Amino acid sequence: MIIQLESKIKTKDKQLILKSIAAINHKPTEVKTQAGNYLVCIGKADFDIRLIGSLPGVLDVHRVSESYKLVSKKWKVGYSHVDLGGGIKIGAAQKTIMAGPCSIESEEQVEKIVTHLKLNGIKVMRGGVFKPRSSPYAFRGLGIDGLKMFYRICKKNGIKIITEVMQVSQIKEMYDYVDVFQVGARNSQNFNLLDELGKVDKSILLKRGMSGTIDELLQSAEYVFSNGNEKLILCERGIRTYENAYRNTFDINAIAVLKEKSHLPVIADPSHGIGVREHVAAIGLASLIAGADGVIYEVHQCPEEAASDGQQTLNFDESAAFVKKINLLTNYN
Amino acid sequence: MIIQLESKIKTKDKQLILKSIAAINHKPTEVKTQAGNYLVCIGKADFDIRLIGSLPGVLDVHRVSESYKLVSKKWKVGYSHVDLGGGIKIGAAQKTIMAGPCSIESEEQVEKIVTHLKLNGIKVMRGGVFKPRSSPYAFRGLGIDGLKMFYRICKKNGIKIITEVMQVSQIKEMYDYVDVFQVGARNSQNFNLLDELGKVDKSILLKRGMSGTIDELLQSAEYVFSNGNEKLILCERGIRTYENAYRNTFDINAIAVLKEKSHLPVIADPSHGIGVREHVAAIGLASLIAGADGVIYEVHQCPEEAASDGQQTLNFDESAAFVKKINLLTNYN
Amino acid sequence: MIIQLESKIKTKDKQLILKSIAAINHKPTEVKTQAGNYLVCIGKADFDIRLIGSLPGVLDVHRVSESYKLVSKKWKVGYSHVDLGGGIKIGAAQKTIMAGPCSIESEEQVEKIVTHLKLNGIKVMRGGVFKPRSSPYAFRGLGIDGLKMFYRICKKNGIKIITEVMQVSQIKEMYDYVDVFQVGARNSQNFNLLDELGKVDKSILLKRGMSGTIDELLQSAEYVFSNGNEKLILCERGIRTYENAYRNTFDINAIAVLKEKSHLPVIADPSHGIGVREHVAAIGLASLIAGADGVIYEVHQCPEEAASDGQQTLNFDESAAFVKKINLLTNYN
Amino acid sequence: MIIQLESKIKTKDKQLILKSIAAINHKPTEVKTQAGNYLVCIGKADFDIRLIGSLPGVLDVHRVSESYKLVSKKWKVGYSHVDLGGGIKIGAAQKTIMAGPCSIESEEQVEKIVTHLKLNGIKVMRGGVFKPRSSPYAFRGLGIDGLKMFYRICKKNGIKIITEVMQVSQIKEMYDYVDVFQVGARNSQNFNLLDELGKVDKSILLKRGMSGTIDELLQSAEYVFSNGNEKLILCERGIRTYENAYRNTFDINAIAVLKEKSHLPVIADPSHGIGVREHVAAIGLASLIAGADGVIYEVHQCPEEAASDGQQTLNFDESAAFVKKINLLTNYN
Repeated sequence: MIIQLESKIKTKDKQLILKSIAAINHKPTEVKTQAGNYLVCIGKADFDIRLIGSLPGVLDVHRVSESYKLVSKKWKVGYSHVDLGGGIKIGAAQKTIMAGPCSIESEEQVEKIVTHLKLNGIKVMRGGVFKPRSSPYAFRGLGIDGLKMFYRICKKNGIKIITEVMQVSQIKEMYDYVDVFQVGARNSQNFNLLDELGKVDKSILLKRGMSGTIDELLQSAEYVFSNGNEKLILCERGIRTYENAYRNTFDINAIAVLKEKSHLPVIADPSHGIGVREHVAAIGLASLIAGADGVIYEVHQCPEEAASDGQQTLNFDESAAFVKKINLLTNYN
Repeated sequence: MIIQLESKIKTKDKQLILKSIAAINHKPTEVKTQAGNYLVCIGKADFDIRLIGSLPGVLDVHRVSESYKLVSKKWKVGYSHVDLGGGIKIGAAQKTIMAGPCSIESEEQVEKIVTHLKLNGIKVMRGGVFKPRSSPYAFRGLGIDGLKMFYRICKKNGIKIITEVMQVSQIKEMYDYVDVFQVGARNSQNFNLLDELGKVDKSILLKRGMSGTIDELLQSAEYVFSNGNEKLILCERGIRTYENAYRNTFDINAIAVLKEKSHLPVIADPSHGIGVREHVAAIGLASLIAGADGVIYEVHQCPEEAASDGQQTLNFDESAAFVKKINLLTNYN
Repeated sequence: MIIQLESKIKTKDKQLILKSIAAINHKPTEVKTQAGNYLVCIGKADFDIRLIGSLPGVLDVHRVSESYKLVSKKWKVGYSHVDLGGGIKIGAAQKTIMAGPCSIESEEQVEKIVTHLKLNGIKVMRGGVFKPRSSPYAFRGLGIDGLKMFYRICKKNGIKIITEVMQVSQIKEMYDYVDVFQVGARNSQNFNLLDELGKVDKSILLKRGMSGTIDELLQSAEYVFSNGNEKLILCERGIRTYENAYRNTFDINAIAVLKEKSHLPVIADPSHGIGVREHVAAIGLASLIAGADGVIYEVHQCPEEAASDGQQTLNFDESAAFVKKINLLTNYN
Repeated sequence: MIIQLESKIKTKDKQLILKSIAAINHKPTEVKTQAGNYLVCIGKADFDIRLIGSLPGVLDVHRVSESYKLVSKKWKVGYSHVDLGGGIKIGAAQKTIMAGPCSIESEEQVEKIVTHLKLNGIKVMRGGVFKPRSSPYAFRGLGIDGLKMFYRICKKNGIKIITEVMQVSQIKEMYDYVDVFQVGARNSQNFNLLDELGKVDKSILLKRGMSGTIDELLQSAEYVFSNGNEKLILCERGIRTYENAYRNTFDINAIAVLKEKSHLPVIADPSHGIGVREHVAAIGLASLIAGADGVIYEVHQCPEEAASDGQQTLNFDESAAFVKKINLLTNYN
């Protein structure tokens, strides 16, 4: 059960509500986000929901039987969106395009890609500075100095940035240089990280785990939301299956089902979803038709020389053609 | 290596070619289909392909390194299509829609659905009379009498039919009452059945196995083709993964990759691909955007009362809305 | 519900029972096997089982809620076993060892392997003459003549044989030359084949599908049993997963769980289960500890030259060492 | 390539070695662990390994082509083991048994279980105080105070403890109260955590990820080792597959293959591996036969009332019976 409270609820009203919750043997968690004030109640006993609904200080009350609560669509009228400022709203009417290299490599690289993005009307740039790599001997990214450079150039050009955060201690040092914190597939159930990201007022894009279920993704999102941060975006990026004709198996079903189960925006990552450059656009377009609120993909001035993920990275021509198709599709829709 | 032979090749020319193949230690398989005359040669030794290409009786010669040969796109200019007559061509410019119930249940049912199909411009009806069921105690279909009834009504109405064949002995009795033989997921590697279907002059729709790879699907198709039947359609219907929020995981990557690797038409089955009625249209549209040549889906006058697969079957309103969206999308494309 | 009937039940008694079943809205299937006489009843209505149990002609009656019935352990006291004659009982106290090549290749080969088996006390030889191969251009086995030769040599030496049957039409021609029909992983849900194998009085070893569930395997076994054949053996041979460090992932859990859920004997196939020669013995021994009634593995006088599956086939020394370890383990147990 | 250096190598000798590595275009990483002094060199160029081997200060040099290096078996004679003190050596001749509850719940609980362990000769107790839970609303463990209590009771009784660490910041506060740090499946690719655990002189048990590959597990272990910590234990705990008859699919193949590829000790976790109490012993014994150096399993004075994982937790009688079987098997072996 989710109880929406009045923003300026009186202490004694809240106490009465908590008492009533205790009376039906439910365990409440108080959640205060940028947008609301909630009591999430977990319990098994059956009860008359109107008893709670009629208490002073209660705006509304909803039964949510799923293991995730606040990210469920059951209690919200319509979908939520995340506002990055500058007119960029993820999950609103417009489809959002985010693009950029796997890894930030140099100032020159960022500038070239920014120019490409601006030419094609793309307003959010992706790029990693802390890279999770299977091998300890692989390139691990430019780190915090790379981030500052990346952010500086983008800000100057009116581009928002999204970049991966890998651990709690990085949140603070990255905070001023990030528009969207990305949580990668390997950290999809790093609950301490999710807890802390729930305590900052910054947008979060949460990727599905490598073999994460829909349910686990939504519960991970619940970690962030229930710690106080509603600025949440879900991301489908392909799952691990027996098929090895491609890097991952993009789960198009997940797009449709996440939009049914949650009010949060859903972004598709076709680059990781198929891992083959030639097919990134096809999978991206399919995701949008299936209901995704946008795409995030990899682009590089010279994919063959990219520090990582070159085989799934578009060059500028391919990227421009993809954007053109997205715009055509969006207008049709 | 695939050698295309002249249709009226002289015996002595063929003998010279076979001798040349033996000389480079390749093993030839002679294939004669409705459309062509081929020698498929398997071997490891390196050789000068022009030596073969210049022999009398040879139309063309192509290296194909994949384990599948004749179904590969490497040797064909453009895509092939399957002509069902009556202007219905699968794999040609038009997207093809096939729809119908999981199981044929009664004359009344078939007539109701035929009326719905005609109203919506759908020209191919699906419907099973031999049903593969996990349990021996479940409904196994109306059998050959059901097929005759199904075919009779459809023929009268100018509708082509597609229905599943489960074993070699059924081919002959079904032959006169079928436009397209469907090979189900469970029979995707029933090689004896594939061999025999290669010997008849009737279209075949081959479904990917429940956990079949792209490569296995194409090799299964090669069984049919190399036995002499080019009238082949591939079908992606979802694969088995760890995720159980849906019946299967529709593999949208497969659509794009099959169209890259093979010249055969590819049809998407979103009904089995997700198994949830609400999302069949979304997945179907996504498949078309990703390159599928058409869709096959389940529709029933009253899904709640269907003998099987009700939870993934559209009702008439949902089906009509889906068709409308397909037409819109096709015109945009 | 399973009703065990007296072997010489009177017609009028049976009619009364069928009437009583109809009265509780259950659908009966009559099953007559080598060992028993059953009515398998499917239905949802609740009823007093004693009403059925007290009818004349009824030996016993059992509720079985699973989708599979006759293969369930719920209605049987103890485990069943399959008697091949000559003192060879699969599923009885002794662990059974079956070994032989992937494919029967020549008279000389069979004789060499038979000698090896006899030296090591192995009494059942495996060997394929009809080979299911992914590619139509691969070696497909010696066929029925090979089988006759294989059977003749083995019979002369007191060795029983197990070999794969791929389609209905082969059953009759193979019948006289087979001790155990093997149903391969690709045919695990070839229901027509299972139906027909249920009608013959010959032992059947049923392999789990490549990505078959425990439940599907037991339902496939139910096809055979409910058609009249109790001489059934289940076989775990590894499943398809994302891991590609080995050919398949041997599912050791399945061994323990099948012995919990079914009364049928369970055999492990470590050769396909891991697909790497060096580890076949380790996986085989683990299976026996986990409860398997025996193992089936591949052995060849010269694995490097085997027509198929060489990389997972033991040579004679490895095979002898494996048998020695099995005997040691069996004595410990 | 791994170069083992003399422990007191002279600066000028090391400089010459580094120069020689640069000359063949390899990138060296210096690794100093409790036991050795290494240079791990990554590069593609071919070279004469003897040139390196003959340099002063070099103890030995080995080619290791895998993506993991120091954890590979290729450069080590024999297997390594981890010494916990008090005669407890993991990976040495004796099989190691670790047992305890999923979660530490109370002083009384710990004392009851410690008594059980001592009675059965078990010298390592598991128990979580920081619990990774899918839902933010679930019990997350007693935290650091619980750990201190847990450690105090065990130390008094001569029992070593193993417990999960979830994030970098916990390492320091847990350090004095832990004998083995466990890295859970969800953190198997939490590279920052692995980096930091490589810098402490304490044993680490690293679990395979939920759908982690063998290769990824070994590369994660390489993170720890290459940061300076050789006290490493690998753990197979079941993987995620399509089968849902059990919680996970225990990958018995992994046991055999990890012992082939790495010199590190391998422990099996049958509790999570199958997730069904009745079969934990069968899977545990199978693991030992397949080569595991020990088992870790869940036991509780009253599994039905356990705070978590009750369905896969043994009671004292089941646990005692399991230990008895392990001892019997070990003596046979």
